[in-house]
Amino acid sequence: MTWARGGRADGSVLTGVVMDGMLHPRDGLGSAATAGAPVPLADLAPLPPVVPGKFIGLWNNYKAAAEKGGQAHPTHPLWFLKADTSLAGPEAEVTLPDSAGRVIFEGELGIVIGQTCKNAATEAEAEAAILGYTCVNDITSLDVLNADPSFAQWTRAKSFDGFGVIGPVIATGLDWRALVVKVLVDGRERQSYEASDMILTPPQIVQLLSQDMTLNPGDVIACGTSLGARPVKAGQRVEVVIDGIGSLGVTLVAPA
Amino acid sequence: MTWARGGRADGSVLTGVVMDGMLHPRDGLGSAATAGAPVPLADLAPLPPVVPGKFIGLWNNYKAAAEKGGQAHPTHPLWFLKADTSLAGPEAEVTLPDSAGRVIFEGELGIVIGQTCKNAATEAEAEAAILGYTCVNDITSLDVLNADPSFAQWTRAKSFDGFGVIGPVIATGLDWRALVVKVLVDGRERQSYEASDMILTPPQIVQLLSQDMTLNPGDVIACGTSLGARPVKAGQRVEVVIDGIGSLGVTLVAPA
Repeated sequence: MTWARGGRADGSVLTGVVMDGMLHPRDGLGSAATAGAPVPLADLAPLPPVVPGKFIGLWNNYKAAAEKGGQAHPTHPLWFLKADTSLAGPEAEVTLPDSAGRVIFEGELGIVIGQTCKNAATEAEAEAAILGYTCVNDITSLDVLNADPSFAQWTRAKSFDGFGVIGPVIATGLDWRALVVKVLVDGRERQSYEASDMILTPPQIVQLLSQDMTLNPGDVIACGTSLGARPVKAGQRVEVVIDGIGSLGVTLVAPA
Repeated sequence: MTWARGGRADGSVLTGVVMDGMLHPRDGLGSAATAGAPVPLADLAPLPPVVPGKFIGLWNNYKAAAEKGGQAHPTHPLWFLKADTSLAGPEAEVTLPDSAGRVIFEGELGIVIGQTCKNAATEAEAEAAILGYTCVNDITSLDVLNADPSFAQWTRAKSFDGFGVIGPVIATGLDWRALVVKVLVDGRERQSYEASDMILTPPQIVQLLSQDMTLNPGDVIACGTSLGARPVKAGQRVEVVIDGIGSLGVTLVAPA
């Protein structure tokens, strides 16, 4: 099943299931209750498929990247939050502020929570709280991240408006082990890695994060990136592509 | 003016202005539009005075603490986010999970945003976006913060459920320079410092943060703590007291 959100010309927003080029409105994300007649996707403005209460990102969660960086494998997710206002969706224009300096893309697999989850006792219980998966572009300012030697500015570096791109849809029923995360910059492949190279798996991530705090429906967890993230600049188009989910493209622009 | 939120027996929530022991309901935080008859505060369950879209916390923003710690004065706020699910209000019971290890209180002054603010051109413009001030107890796990040498876990250490206490009200029209932040543990004063010792002032903080991202009405910015934060344990009562705002008390409890 494929979930998406779209905006109507009157400003209202629909959440629903995508079938045959139509959005079939539902009462809410994951709900079985229909909420109106199907609408052609072509008549809707693309939106992030969910507005997360928490937008969590992981660092150092791929074996290849950990090996290259000489990092130990974490036994608990090393995570940060991205600000609510960083959220952007498919086909967004993302402004790169001058104050962000050098900016990189990070193509990632995103977990979307479907059920409230706190202190999950088992990986199976945690996995049952996952609604599905989406593509994430966890845009990051390298210069801000390392600007202060006394304080690594993870959240600030990743929270400029539009730096948290998700979409185009949330796909359910996928086997995450089979997914490949690719990033194209102006159509050229710049990143490609297998999700199966993760250190902590999605069920482990959800179980461990649920020991830190309550996870709520709609929360998004970006699973971290692997090798290949690199600088981008205004004027470029960046697409995160995961077969089974779709292609999440944005255009980077200079400040007005 | 003093803003608060309260819960009715039927589960509904009122936002309004406190006068003469009554909550005078308004259409929303900062709104001039009335929304029903006044309700005695005694008939309402205390709630956090706002549900922030972003709950921002600052590190290293007091001169006395920077001097003691040998830290340089930052020229831009060094900040992290607390999770939405960390939010707690007056008279909450805050569970200290075993996984949090050693936990400290941090009494702080909190800024509450009243108007959307992005790239504020002047400190005066930024100051105009401030609705008022509240008390914050920015509860923090010392053991989690420093558990991994490769990654300081600011957000995780400060985001356990209930670790973001705000209230009891939002007071407008205060001169922040005149405020004194005190913390009492079981009635004994453990922290007392003047807000005027801040390195970056509230208008500067708001102006600089508005360069990082859009600040929205209801966003809360905890201005950082000074000397005196110290470990607490289950069974203790912790109150953050700022004259002109009020007393924000919580009880710390062991996991069920």
